[in-house]
Amino acid sequence: MSAPIPPSPWHTWLPMLRWVRHYRRDHATADGVAAVVVTLMLVPQSLAYAQLAGMPPEAGLYASILPLVVYAVLGTSSALAVGPAAVTSLMTAAAAGALAPEGTSAYGWAVWWLAALSGAISLLLGVLRLGVLAHFLSHPVLHGFVSASGILIAASQLKHLLGVPLSGTTLPALLVQGWHTVGGTHGPTLLIGAGTLAVLLAARRGLRPGLRRLGWSATAADVAAKAAPVAILAAVTAVCAAADAASHGVRVVGAVPAGLPAFTWPGLGDGGWAGLEPLLLPAFLLAIVGFVESVSVGQSLAARRRERIDPDAELRALGAGNLAAAVSGGFPVTGGFARSVVNFEAGARTPAAGLYTAVGLAGVAAFLTPALHHLPQAALAATIMVAVLTLVDLPAFARIWRYSRSDFAAMALTAALTLTVGVEAGLGAGVLASIALLLYRNSRPHIAVVGRIPGTEHFRNVERHAVETVPHVLGLRVDESLTFANARFLEDYVAAQVAARPAVRDVVLQCSAINEIDASALESLQTIQERLAQAGIRLHLSEVKGPVMDRLQRAGLPAWLSGQVFLSHHQAIETLAPSSPRSVTPD
Amino acid sequence: MSAPIPPSPWHTWLPMLRWVRHYRRDHATADGVAAVVVTLMLVPQSLAYAQLAGMPPEAGLYASILPLVVYAVLGTSSALAVGPAAVTSLMTAAAAGALAPEGTSAYGWAVWWLAALSGAISLLLGVLRLGVLAHFLSHPVLHGFVSASGILIAASQLKHLLGVPLSGTTLPALLVQGWHTVGGTHGPTLLIGAGTLAVLLAARRGLRPGLRRLGWSATAADVAAKAAPVAILAAVTAVCAAADAASHGVRVVGAVPAGLPAFTWPGLGDGGWAGLEPLLLPAFLLAIVGFVESVSVGQSLAARRRERIDPDAELRALGAGNLAAAVSGGFPVTGGFARSVVNFEAGARTPAAGLYTAVGLAGVAAFLTPALHHLPQAALAATIMVAVLTLVDLPAFARIWRYSRSDFAAMALTAALTLTVGVEAGLGAGVLASIALLLYRNSRPHIAVVGRIPGTEHFRNVERHAVETVPHVLGLRVDESLTFANARFLEDYVAAQVAARPAVRDVVLQCSAINEIDASALESLQTIQERLAQAGIRLHLSEVKGPVMDRLQRAGLPAWLSGQVFLSHHQAIETLAPSSPRSVTPD
Repeated sequence: MSAPIPPSPWHTWLPMLRWVRHYRRDHATADGVAAVVVTLMLVPQSLAYAQLAGMPPEAGLYASILPLVVYAVLGTSSALAVGPAAVTSLMTAAAAGALAPEGTSAYGWAVWWLAALSGAISLLLGVLRLGVLAHFLSHPVLHGFVSASGILIAASQLKHLLGVPLSGTTLPALLVQGWHTVGGTHGPTLLIGAGTLAVLLAARRGLRPGLRRLGWSATAADVAAKAAPVAILAAVTAVCAAADAASHGVRVVGAVPAGLPAFTWPGLGDGGWAGLEPLLLPAFLLAIVGFVESVSVGQSLAARRRERIDPDAELRALGAGNLAAAVSGGFPVTGGFARSVVNFEAGARTPAAGLYTAVGLAGVAAFLTPALHHLPQAALAATIMVAVLTLVDLPAFARIWRYSRSDFAAMALTAALTLTVGVEAGLGAGVLASIALLLYRNSRPHIAVVGRIPGTEHFRNVERHAVETVPHVLGLRVDESLTFANARFLEDYVAAQVAARPAVRDVVLQCSAINEIDASALESLQTIQERLAQAGIRLHLSEVKGPVMDRLQRAGLPAWLSGQVFLSHHQAIETLAPSSPRSVTPD
Repeated sequence: MSAPIPPSPWHTWLPMLRWVRHYRRDHATADGVAAVVVTLMLVPQSLAYAQLAGMPPEAGLYASILPLVVYAVLGTSSALAVGPAAVTSLMTAAAAGALAPEGTSAYGWAVWWLAALSGAISLLLGVLRLGVLAHFLSHPVLHGFVSASGILIAASQLKHLLGVPLSGTTLPALLVQGWHTVGGTHGPTLLIGAGTLAVLLAARRGLRPGLRRLGWSATAADVAAKAAPVAILAAVTAVCAAADAASHGVRVVGAVPAGLPAFTWPGLGDGGWAGLEPLLLPAFLLAIVGFVESVSVGQSLAARRRERIDPDAELRALGAGNLAAAVSGGFPVTGGFARSVVNFEAGARTPAAGLYTAVGLAGVAAFLTPALHHLPQAALAATIMVAVLTLVDLPAFARIWRYSRSDFAAMALTAALTLTVGVEAGLGAGVLASIALLLYRNSRPHIAVVGRIPGTEHFRNVERHAVETVPHVLGLRVDESLTFANARFLEDYVAAQVAARPAVRDVVLQCSAINEIDASALESLQTIQERLAQAGIRLHLSEVKGPVMDRLQRAGLPAWLSGQVFLSHHQAIETLAPSSPRSVTPD
């Protein structure tokens, strides 16, 4: 297996060096334009995800400043836009909510440590080059988890949309509570929330084609469609300010302290290091989910320009970014899908676009927070609901059901547990189910009794083809590497086949699909060989791959094998049964 | 995959029906002779393993009666001899010792429940046909575990051999305690123990060849060698009785109640069902280890006669046998290796041999216990030490080190943890390490860039062979099924190869070694396809296996693939680059 020549250590550990020396004026212009667009998008998103995570609005803004600077230095994607994101905010709320009620200082402490621990874990995994761990989050499990998270997120925002108190964290709890409190719905809040939701949905669906029909250019219609959510929120805020909605009981963002984030360090708390233990698993899952989300979007954007990202460098960049997020406000971040695509399409050429976005957000945090005062929470809830609509992918369930029942089972289990027990239970069960399925499949390899297609040198499954077989020679093809998981299965299988065929004197194992034989399988082969020998049957091998044969020879193969090793299965049959009568199986 | 026609349900669930109707007089004679030999062997073994498990001697005898009757009815091996065994007795002592001190009624309660729970678990696994679970105990882990257990067992018997108190359960603890108490060694005890050990070892090594040299027939020498341990113990007992060794401080078996086992039921204890929780994992491990030991010996003996055993029926038989062991004395049992081989070689033809052995043991328990009174514990310790010598297989460590470093790592981890932490920690860590290694290997499949061997239609790895390649066509062969564990690895790999080869316009994936594509890998293929398409590159497949192609078509393959599906890789290259100049890589 060859790979391109690796870059120098400096370029590996400080990816900024890859682009900063070639940075040109036109790069700066492109990055700057993209940064303006992303800043406009990131302000309401930051506030909304802070609300979702149960944190004050400024935490969302702060999490969109320093982490972006860190990512620009350490990241390898030219378009990834880092900041608070929907699923990680939900996971943050679930983990912190299990320790303390929302709004308490203990809750903020837990969120701070979630950012710090998930950052440290990502950084460690990145330094150890263990990005491979994320591979064990199978796609069906991820789909099931993200879809269920989207539904949970939408349900969690109902309280803001209706203006009623709801504190459940599972779908059944939220629905039952919602049923009992829906009578207390606050009319003006619902009006603002549902109205914003309707306008946002309409703009999302109809604005671009509508403007095109009015004769706007494609680019202008595109920009207008992207700016629409910000404009809609600005309009809602203006209306609420004019009508003094807060005095009518509509909950608004309120006073957001103006200024830049200060360095924060909440201390270890009463429990010392041991007190962090309940946060370790959530932080690990947060690191993995954040990484998978980030690296997926980063890879697909990089591929469009025929570039590459370095997954381990991404882990380090996200890890350092989350440590930066912790000390500058305390709120976990990751690369967001929607805003990264916008960043890419707006023309971002290098990670410097993230630097400029950070400057934009810093400007908002320093000077524009008074403008956010009258922004109603119901409008932010509507923003979140529209954003998570794209997460819920019901057709994926049907698609995976058709393709593979076992993959569907893992997906459905993940989604069901996420909705009814919690995000960690769902994700954990999904990963375990995927691994169990892989092991189960591995433990029951496909094995075929093979015979020769008359007139050729090809050997095929006797059950699928009309083939010739010889009574005293049994040909078996194993379609899987031999490992401890299936070694005993092969023992059982050979024993059963031989017991059912009293005429057999030679067994030939066709090894063309065997890429590896581990130590357990080697011993099973020896066991099979011994048992066959005691019954007066010889064991032969055919079509053994080079690396497998090298290893078998190191294990002294010629000495213990009663039969021979043949280069081709055809040669084996010709040698063992040169003139035996062939019987042909029906097709 | 075909298997022999399954027997009727009655034969499946009551395997006794398979042989009882054909039972002949000559079978009875052969079984009876074997039963006498096994009874002679089982009496001292039962007492010794009861001592190892920290149970009174009669518990060992009782565990060799009813379980044998149950196994004869439900078992499928004609030669397996069930009863107390070394490793399971060690595991029993470790699990019960963690709950209560040896000799207390709480200790006996724990052992009773270990037998009952491991029996229930085996029975359940057998009914659910989950014998496959035992496959996940890889051979290296099992070797490491059994060797370490052998050392631990030998170390645990030092106290009986030296006549000093030692209560540790790990090797370091036993050695440190032994170092401090060795000064208190009881001379007469050591004399008896070391003497018995020396004579047993000498008889084991030299008796058979010695008698042969004296002109004995092979059969007579064989029988004498097998009877020797019993004769030696009988002689030691007689000497101790004559010298009244017990009055000189030598610990002897003492008064063993005469009679048959009564039905016992210790109740749930104060904790109710919840009180059994700490015993669940040990009972599960006991069930799995007992099953693996039993099924290994059963299979190898069956194969010698070209017979088969049914692993799931074996699980049920061992499960029911352990439940019977619990209610008739309370001590876990399994099929023992040494005595099963003796049973086989003494001529046992059917499981009825076990029935006769049970009658023999019942006779001993009812009438001969007074003869056991003066048997010294030090002599039993010597018996155990000689028996476990065969368990310690140090050459296996060297063999597996040479064959596979990663398998060796799992083996060494298991052995080290078993010796220093405990049997459950060792076994658990070993299983997890094996699974992790399997997943890791699965996650990094071998992928080769392939080119054509000039003048043939064969395509081989460009790094191993002198082959022709075409600049604008990249041929890749993946030597592994595509699953979630390696899907993203393939994405990265293709991205890296394409980024390194600007001339590439077509990528052909040779799928000859791909036996399965799961839902995650399907999406990864689609992602690869999309990313390549955005870079202006087409993706093709070649040599896709039938079942894999069926599934891809169900997932709408022709619609989303930008390239074509070729029957052979050769055809792909001929179609995509009919007249391109070939460059030949150096060999």
